[in-house]
Amino acid sequence: MKIALAQQNYIIGDFDGNLSKIASAVSDATASGAELVIFSELSICGYPPLDLLERREFIETCILYTEKLTSMVDPGTGVLVGSPEFNPNKDGKMLFNSAFFLYEGKVQQVFRKTLLPTYDIFDEYRYFEPNREFNILHFKGKKLAVTICEDLWDEQPFENDFSRSRLYTTNPLKELMAFDPDLIINIAASPFAHRKMEIKQSIFKDKAAKHKLPVLYCNQVGAHTELIFEGGSMAIHSSGQIANKLPFFSEGILITDLDELVDSVPDSVEEIPDRIGCMAEALICGIRDYFGKMNFLTATLGLSGGVDSAVTLALAAEALGPENLHVLLLPSQYSSDHSVNDSVQMAENLRIKYNILPIEKLFNSFRETLFPLFENLPEDITEENIQARIRGTLLMALSNKFGNILLNTSNKSEAAVGYGTLYGDMSGGLSILGDVYKTDVYLLAHYLNKEKEVIPENIIDKAPSAELRPDQKDSDSLPLYEELDLILEAYIEKQLPLEKLVEMGYDFQLVSKIIRMVNQNEYKRYQTPPILRISSKAFGVGRRLPLVARY
Amino acid sequence: MKIALAQQNYIIGDFDGNLSKIASAVSDATASGAELVIFSELSICGYPPLDLLERREFIETCILYTEKLTSMVDPGTGVLVGSPEFNPNKDGKMLFNSAFFLYEGKVQQVFRKTLLPTYDIFDEYRYFEPNREFNILHFKGKKLAVTICEDLWDEQPFENDFSRSRLYTTNPLKELMAFDPDLIINIAASPFAHRKMEIKQSIFKDKAAKHKLPVLYCNQVGAHTELIFEGGSMAIHSSGQIANKLPFFSEGILITDLDELVDSVPDSVEEIPDRIGCMAEALICGIRDYFGKMNFLTATLGLSGGVDSAVTLALAAEALGPENLHVLLLPSQYSSDHSVNDSVQMAENLRIKYNILPIEKLFNSFRETLFPLFENLPEDITEENIQARIRGTLLMALSNKFGNILLNTSNKSEAAVGYGTLYGDMSGGLSILGDVYKTDVYLLAHYLNKEKEVIPENIIDKAPSAELRPDQKDSDSLPLYEELDLILEAYIEKQLPLEKLVEMGYDFQLVSKIIRMVNQNEYKRYQTPPILRISSKAFGVGRRLPLVARY
Repeated sequence: MKIALAQQNYIIGDFDGNLSKIASAVSDATASGAELVIFSELSICGYPPLDLLERREFIETCILYTEKLTSMVDPGTGVLVGSPEFNPNKDGKMLFNSAFFLYEGKVQQVFRKTLLPTYDIFDEYRYFEPNREFNILHFKGKKLAVTICEDLWDEQPFENDFSRSRLYTTNPLKELMAFDPDLIINIAASPFAHRKMEIKQSIFKDKAAKHKLPVLYCNQVGAHTELIFEGGSMAIHSSGQIANKLPFFSEGILITDLDELVDSVPDSVEEIPDRIGCMAEALICGIRDYFGKMNFLTATLGLSGGVDSAVTLALAAEALGPENLHVLLLPSQYSSDHSVNDSVQMAENLRIKYNILPIEKLFNSFRETLFPLFENLPEDITEENIQARIRGTLLMALSNKFGNILLNTSNKSEAAVGYGTLYGDMSGGLSILGDVYKTDVYLLAHYLNKEKEVIPENIIDKAPSAELRPDQKDSDSLPLYEELDLILEAYIEKQLPLEKLVEMGYDFQLVSKIIRMVNQNEYKRYQTPPILRISSKAFGVGRRLPLVARY
Repeated sequence: MKIALAQQNYIIGDFDGNLSKIASAVSDATASGAELVIFSELSICGYPPLDLLERREFIETCILYTEKLTSMVDPGTGVLVGSPEFNPNKDGKMLFNSAFFLYEGKVQQVFRKTLLPTYDIFDEYRYFEPNREFNILHFKGKKLAVTICEDLWDEQPFENDFSRSRLYTTNPLKELMAFDPDLIINIAASPFAHRKMEIKQSIFKDKAAKHKLPVLYCNQVGAHTELIFEGGSMAIHSSGQIANKLPFFSEGILITDLDELVDSVPDSVEEIPDRIGCMAEALICGIRDYFGKMNFLTATLGLSGGVDSAVTLALAAEALGPENLHVLLLPSQYSSDHSVNDSVQMAENLRIKYNILPIEKLFNSFRETLFPLFENLPEDITEENIQARIRGTLLMALSNKFGNILLNTSNKSEAAVGYGTLYGDMSGGLSILGDVYKTDVYLLAHYLNKEKEVIPENIIDKAPSAELRPDQKDSDSLPLYEELDLILEAYIEKQLPLEKLVEMGYDFQLVSKIIRMVNQNEYKRYQTPPILRISSKAFGVGRRLPLVARY
């Protein structure tokens, strides 16, 4: 039997668009001989629909479009499509997260998700009741075990200090093995994390090898606000080797012969994906889909002469085209000449429209207006923030007048320690680097310069500075980023406590200060734009800390 | 047996503070003859600790302090205190949400929460495994059924279109009735919602009446960032009548004789709480605790001459004292004289420090700076937003220089339709009225003026206007708030679809336009400050909608 995996990029709630995309993949796959076509989790509406799942009309539309699909596709082709389903039982949550099997013009069978991820960015038990009844899909003489994403993650690796591998008390695959299946199918919406690429592969490879069964894994591709799904759908041989796979960050259909996944031992298509390369691709996908799915065309940002805005611009140019960018250079009296020159160089390298608007006069106007309040008081962080907010206001003015969406250029290291001004440089519609530590921003800069110099070397080489007072350097108030980032990652991603960090050899005073800075700046991060998530623990919806608390 | 309910206001993660508060209540209650003292849910750490529950050191500290408590209190007094507990089983989530029973110097027994609310602002299945084993507390010859908050909400009323009363497949009280208990205890952290006061009472009264057993309900009091807990702990007679209760929004200890909750029929202490009065108390509690628990003293805001900033100021004066407020009047060329005069009047009524800083010069500076980009283009929303952002920057400058926290003054009606400027009037550390519809803001204004005129009548009577262009009125672009608020509440709180709203008699065009405005402005609300929650569906953490989507 030939089976197709359709890796597609949906728009949440765009039922017509998603349906025609799905129907067209069925028709292409059928033409290529596929007898069963498999789509990703909640494909009919796109994943994650969040609280749209709490609206009756949204669920009714999902069901309606799933039924519409039955009449649009070849009745002789089996289709497995993801949709929410009303829970027919009187008790429990309103919905199931289900896979609908369509064949011969109607819904033949429904399979429900058992393990509902409710951690980090996932909130599935908010909406769905877990499945408790198991059954198998009989199709063309074969028995297919249908699972939905987390269902195969009954045992999962973890990177943080306080976690465990078995988060659930049921094991769906164990239940399904009682039916003696010929194949394991997994329809998924599994988001990208730059250190989880290999882990994700091994989950599926291990299941195949353990049960000596082929695994077909169909993942969603594309970005939805902060979440980026990398695709990378795979056909895994019963030996546990990857037989074939779809690319990262683009759509595709993969047709596999089920027999070949059992008989012949495949040529290995294993490769270790490049971490920084994948990160760049993920961020470009994140920008492209944010704009494309919102029907936005053009973007702006403030080019400071530093590496963060330069990398953001290079990624945006790749995602949107340089002709759709219009940047501002907003020097103050504290800006160095090279900041302006390097920025001009960068804009010209990419042929990007730019304006230089000095902010000194506006800064003086603010000082004059505030003179009745601030008379005789020394300058402090207040004046630094005023400069950042003047820049934010000018960028937003350009955005409001011409419709260019402001891209936020803050990186994760800054966001972690609160090194940024709310309503100033923390403004924007989307944060591109808010989940990228500064040391990785440098690696991205080198990666983006691989083929030709897009980012002037001078921007990469200079010491980082906010340039908000004379001769300011980031290293005046922070340790070197090489050290800072390791401490931050240990505290934020790995959730290690102070004591363990000290055991690892970091200075007690330094670690205490950094942890205090992270904790005290939750209030700033509460108000930041959505951040493209590329790690397993990004600031934003997947990290929920009380603002009013002692910790 | 005499039992005490201790209704207390904790600080999340302030273990020393919470412990000494708990120990001191045990000692007071013991002195008054209580044999058992009951505290609210997760009292040892405060509720909700959110992702602090994902840090091992946080849980270890909870356990440590629970054990410390055993040695601090009279060993002859029973204590029921809430704390997270490590899940000793190998599978499932890491934690239980538990009630620890302390007696004779040690932890005697632990009771675990069965029903884990995971909807709206609740995320309990993110952290906790549901209990599956039931047992009873034997104490001084009585059998006490210990439940934790949601455990008694196995059947709950709902106000929205798409919900059901039985969200769970287990019924903890039914299980506990097998032990034939003498009393039902419920330790809770149940947040305030202005239309849920009576529903909450009837949940407990109905359980008492149904099982012919007394119910003791101990709720947390006080605010944690956006969530406000009203207290209102109650002793309910086995007849279903409320025998005695603690006040709303303040701490207290209530001692009840168990026998009296069965024998004599009590004098009823029923009263229907005043909706607007409770809302005002809740907001004042929210402001006071945000500041008190963060060690902030002073606040600022922009007084526009409109009713929102006036009500915010009056509430803040009540919460923080007028001497801790310093407001700015920031008139532009479009501000009417009466806006400034009324604001001055209001500040003087309350003896609040104020400055008048006209923004026209700054506005002109921005126009000059932007002239190279905007030359010959007509003025539009861009220029309105610049004014709002100048004001935001001036208020934040005062905040940064003197440490006054900026209070956001936007109301829920505005926030719903996107009538506000990001980084301008949408700025602030805390939003006071972001969950209060405009029509309720007027009711609050009258309520606050009940005893003497705090808010000048002129501020309440004038037609609402943003005053960002000549002769602007809110009603130019919005329907009257009386109509708008009903539509918004039906769409947001009750989650009714367009069709139902039209069936109810609202104009199709109007409702479509409003729903579109609500949906299209999710991106703005993503970046707003935390909003004091007083309804069952506030903007913020309890309402999660995709930004990139079609709906």
